[in-house]
Amino acid sequence: MRVAVVGGSGFTGLELLRILSTHPEFETAAATSRSLAGEPVDERFPGLDTGLTFVDPADLPDAAVYFTALPHTASMRHVPGLLKRGRVVDLSADYRLPAETYERWYGVEHEAPRDAVYGLTELHRDEIAGADLVANPGCYSTGAILAAKPLFEEGVVERAVFDSKSGISGAGASPSSVKMYSSVAENVRPYSLTDHRHLAEIWQELGGGEPSSRIHFTPHVVPSLRGIETTAHLFLDGDPGDLRGTYEDFYGDDHFVRVVDTVPEPRYVRGSNFAHVGGFERSGGRAVVVSAIDNLVKGASGAAVQNANLMAGLPEWTGLEAPGSVV
Amino acid sequence: MRVAVVGGSGFTGLELLRILSTHPEFETAAATSRSLAGEPVDERFPGLDTGLTFVDPADLPDAAVYFTALPHTASMRHVPGLLKRGRVVDLSADYRLPAETYERWYGVEHEAPRDAVYGLTELHRDEIAGADLVANPGCYSTGAILAAKPLFEEGVVERAVFDSKSGISGAGASPSSVKMYSSVAENVRPYSLTDHRHLAEIWQELGGGEPSSRIHFTPHVVPSLRGIETTAHLFLDGDPGDLRGTYEDFYGDDHFVRVVDTVPEPRYVRGSNFAHVGGFERSGGRAVVVSAIDNLVKGASGAAVQNANLMAGLPEWTGLEAPGSVV
Amino acid sequence: MRVAVVGGSGFTGLELLRILSTHPEFETAAATSRSLAGEPVDERFPGLDTGLTFVDPADLPDAAVYFTALPHTASMRHVPGLLKRGRVVDLSADYRLPAETYERWYGVEHEAPRDAVYGLTELHRDEIAGADLVANPGCYSTGAILAAKPLFEEGVVERAVFDSKSGISGAGASPSSVKMYSSVAENVRPYSLTDHRHLAEIWQELGGGEPSSRIHFTPHVVPSLRGIETTAHLFLDGDPGDLRGTYEDFYGDDHFVRVVDTVPEPRYVRGSNFAHVGGFERSGGRAVVVSAIDNLVKGASGAAVQNANLMAGLPEWTGLEAPGSVV
Amino acid sequence: MRVAVVGGSGFTGLELLRILSTHPEFETAAATSRSLAGEPVDERFPGLDTGLTFVDPADLPDAAVYFTALPHTASMRHVPGLLKRGRVVDLSADYRLPAETYERWYGVEHEAPRDAVYGLTELHRDEIAGADLVANPGCYSTGAILAAKPLFEEGVVERAVFDSKSGISGAGASPSSVKMYSSVAENVRPYSLTDHRHLAEIWQELGGGEPSSRIHFTPHVVPSLRGIETTAHLFLDGDPGDLRGTYEDFYGDDHFVRVVDTVPEPRYVRGSNFAHVGGFERSGGRAVVVSAIDNLVKGASGAAVQNANLMAGLPEWTGLEAPGSVV
Repeated sequence: MRVAVVGGSGFTGLELLRILSTHPEFETAAATSRSLAGEPVDERFPGLDTGLTFVDPADLPDAAVYFTALPHTASMRHVPGLLKRGRVVDLSADYRLPAETYERWYGVEHEAPRDAVYGLTELHRDEIAGADLVANPGCYSTGAILAAKPLFEEGVVERAVFDSKSGISGAGASPSSVKMYSSVAENVRPYSLTDHRHLAEIWQELGGGEPSSRIHFTPHVVPSLRGIETTAHLFLDGDPGDLRGTYEDFYGDDHFVRVVDTVPEPRYVRGSNFAHVGGFERSGGRAVVVSAIDNLVKGASGAAVQNANLMAGLPEWTGLEAPGSVV
Repeated sequence: MRVAVVGGSGFTGLELLRILSTHPEFETAAATSRSLAGEPVDERFPGLDTGLTFVDPADLPDAAVYFTALPHTASMRHVPGLLKRGRVVDLSADYRLPAETYERWYGVEHEAPRDAVYGLTELHRDEIAGADLVANPGCYSTGAILAAKPLFEEGVVERAVFDSKSGISGAGASPSSVKMYSSVAENVRPYSLTDHRHLAEIWQELGGGEPSSRIHFTPHVVPSLRGIETTAHLFLDGDPGDLRGTYEDFYGDDHFVRVVDTVPEPRYVRGSNFAHVGGFERSGGRAVVVSAIDNLVKGASGAAVQNANLMAGLPEWTGLEAPGSVV
Repeated sequence: MRVAVVGGSGFTGLELLRILSTHPEFETAAATSRSLAGEPVDERFPGLDTGLTFVDPADLPDAAVYFTALPHTASMRHVPGLLKRGRVVDLSADYRLPAETYERWYGVEHEAPRDAVYGLTELHRDEIAGADLVANPGCYSTGAILAAKPLFEEGVVERAVFDSKSGISGAGASPSSVKMYSSVAENVRPYSLTDHRHLAEIWQELGGGEPSSRIHFTPHVVPSLRGIETTAHLFLDGDPGDLRGTYEDFYGDDHFVRVVDTVPEPRYVRGSNFAHVGGFERSGGRAVVVSAIDNLVKGASGAAVQNANLMAGLPEWTGLEAPGSVV
Repeated sequence: MRVAVVGGSGFTGLELLRILSTHPEFETAAATSRSLAGEPVDERFPGLDTGLTFVDPADLPDAAVYFTALPHTASMRHVPGLLKRGRVVDLSADYRLPAETYERWYGVEHEAPRDAVYGLTELHRDEIAGADLVANPGCYSTGAILAAKPLFEEGVVERAVFDSKSGISGAGASPSSVKMYSSVAENVRPYSLTDHRHLAEIWQELGGGEPSSRIHFTPHVVPSLRGIETTAHLFLDGDPGDLRGTYEDFYGDDHFVRVVDTVPEPRYVRGSNFAHVGGFERSGGRAVVVSAIDNLVKGASGAAVQNANLMAGLPEWTGLEAPGSVV
């Protein structure tokens, strides 16, 4: 099956190319980049082994599935046209929220709303398989939702605080002061203390979509290339019984969510599409659940391939078998 | 004035020796180390410039103030004897809590309870100046208490969650698996999810000392040598008015607590005794306040010298003028 | 084809298990660990997805190829027995050198010399395919030899200095002071300034095996988990003509050695079995050639699988298709 | 004595402000920054504690010594005017080399040559004390020259290769792709393999100033904020006798050069003006000597203050007493 990557030179686009280069069923027909058109991908990014040359978006060939790895607002200008040619997995924020919610959080008018399925596979597997447009979730959203969904389903969460720590690759590839080694190393940088945009997705998937004083989120950048650790501080107003059991029941059929006996750490999922969920300690009315993902894989490009696999009728782990890291 | 460091070969002991080596009023009479006795300090630790040779604890000379930089339970075996010879600033946990509270949290019998002042200078300055025994606070406790005390004083905090991220030096100098580069780099490690021992100090200073379901704490190790960032998620049940103003009023006279306009980051306090407090965003009933300290300076050895300065009648910043870092 | 990993709990053993878990032709029959026998591999090391449980070496099942990932001197006690049951790829140093050379460099008696092929695939491909015992090269040796072999073959190297910078995983998994985050981060540690044991392999493959004042080597540890960068300072006494052309000719058929247009950096080969060679600047009689490998893959476990593939009659890249990294 | 920092917002300018803020004899009259004029220094860079506000260069007040921390070519436009008002320590490259040598290496015309003393204190102490213009050395040059000067003085060096590893702060504060965390972390980047500009200074101080095929240099960036480790591979054609003794004799009177018993590591000099020199192993005609400095202190701003101290008739260590680091 032919797929194409629209926006191939950012971190999520490159990570798609990395994953797709060993996918046994997908043939990557093209990777677009306006600025790098004509350059061999593997010379510009010597870690890759794709055999491709970047093409201008105007020269995009036909494909069954298009991955759009573009900044928000850029995606909405490409997606409608692509939907006439095939199906789309969009890695931007443009189709994750209802249009009016999107406009409120992102402060721009949505030029091209379309029906889309929110692409957190574990929650929307069946709709994803049949969708024409899948909106791949935000990286923080993925970590937070997976850490808490089973207890929200039980209806026992009175209040949730998600405190997340991310590697810097989540901020993208373009140079800026806060992404320099001298700003990131030996440091922790909290930002968007109360109003990061991924909170809108968390509210949508955990809280019914309305602004909620029950669900809070603060992100931080830590000195890492990849990885998001999310500490979910969950205040309970009911008794879920055995916490681990509740999670094991909820994720029982999910290939990529592993309920672990230890406290999850990002190092163990580095390079893989696995999400680890664990911790499960309780005291004083609070349960602490921890999740760990690789923000570029399960938090972005791996999840996009997982969704495309479902759309293609393949097992969702096809081409995503790489385990995590041992060091 | 002669001072001595008892337990000079751990990270807090060495950091004391580093700070004291340029102190204009204190003369470091000795540094003890059972295992390194006879070795020149500056050859074993070539970053130092003390001119000292480690001595066995049995050969400890007289001093006006003894800094005990020992593991907990070791301190209680040395402090009573030292108090007969002079005054003591203890960097261990042994004298931070009432004996029965200590025994409950540390799971050992307290062999030698003594009256001590809790050495968070900004809260107990006057008692410290006259004390014979000062119990220097825990590093996490310092970061958490400084981030929230002004709002607790206002009586408007319904619930607090302290989510702290620390460099690995807080775990000490002895080799172990979790301190290896391969365990710490490119990772985040949450631990003691609900019951870290420093919580007892936080309860004591913010909550009246009783076990409290209002005050929660979870620590994490991030890939850094030094530094603690604490994100205080403070749920308010009253209106403190202007948050920044409340903090500026509270810390108005404090040399080492700087209420900053930005969100504090550990990189700016690296190597210094300053604590930065800032953030001050509010939404949905939650205020987020962030503090940043160097865990080995304001979180340990710098605070100890700050206290010793007060005990000696010196300005508390004597020998602690080093600013933070620019890179 | 059934393979087994003898010594599965060190870094090279674990990396073997990581690579083998997605190998399409090899079935990993067992991983041994004396200390972890009975523990599920994927619970102890949650980054892995092997489905195995560690077994005691005494319970090692039959396999066609055994990978011995043991410390030197431990290997020589296992290899003779294993050779009676199948073929062996030994990742230790025990079979890389003639016995008397080994004894001189390692300071121990060789208890069980056997004929072995030096397993740098690119130099000894044909012998490896037919060998019963392959001695997998040292990580530094691999980086140095690949960086210089084409010019040594041309006979134009008067003197060579290899200055190598390695991630800390090369030092193994057991805790020690020099491997702590506090010793490795924000630092560079040169060691074995003139006599690192891998020099014996470099002499063997580049200089005919005799002690040589023409070939020098100094290793360093830099703050990285993985990766070796080797700067080969090559003083020439003849004219090799076009440097890049010489290397392209030499490595023309080699799947895993990529002669690049840029200066190689370890980040691009992270997680992959590729070696990048490039640089090729000349001035004042010196040529500078740079190589980059992942010390745990091309420098150890990936090279071992590459060799086992050849021994099994498979394309040498089977199961090793993972590209390098984009971030 | 009043001093001023011209170009106060780059890394060397900021490091000057950090050091000068606790200097007991120098009063920092001003720090200039065209882009930040009017901004309080300590709010823009919260690690600092200067009490200053950036001023426009046009408003530079009088001072006895001006530190020019400007890019090369910018310095030559300011220095002549400043020399009419006082003495100058220039941290740029503009006055380190004879004008024609400068023009050849930097590819620009020198608009304003002036007599200057090369400011490597240990080699030119007496001329510095009386100079009006001191050209502060390059960071790599400092590390390389200090590592080898004693053996060059002995006339026994046949050939030298300096292989240096630097933290990224040496590349300055302006954002660019190669300075991003994602480019620097978990990586080693060799660059300017044969022709880095600091080589001209090394030739000048070690080789008589002529292009030399005896003296070679290759720099690398490693994942560190600060620090330069230089491995000097020194091929000897004479016998210097006891290496360490030769170095101890040469540096006997130098406060800031410490000949150590171990192999120097940058972590021990972090934040300090000390240079450590050690290693001293020999084999096969090669001696290996290692030096470690903090590139922003002894490699730049600390050395500048050391020189200004001499110019002011003060002990050269005034305000530079800070020891290195213990962690």
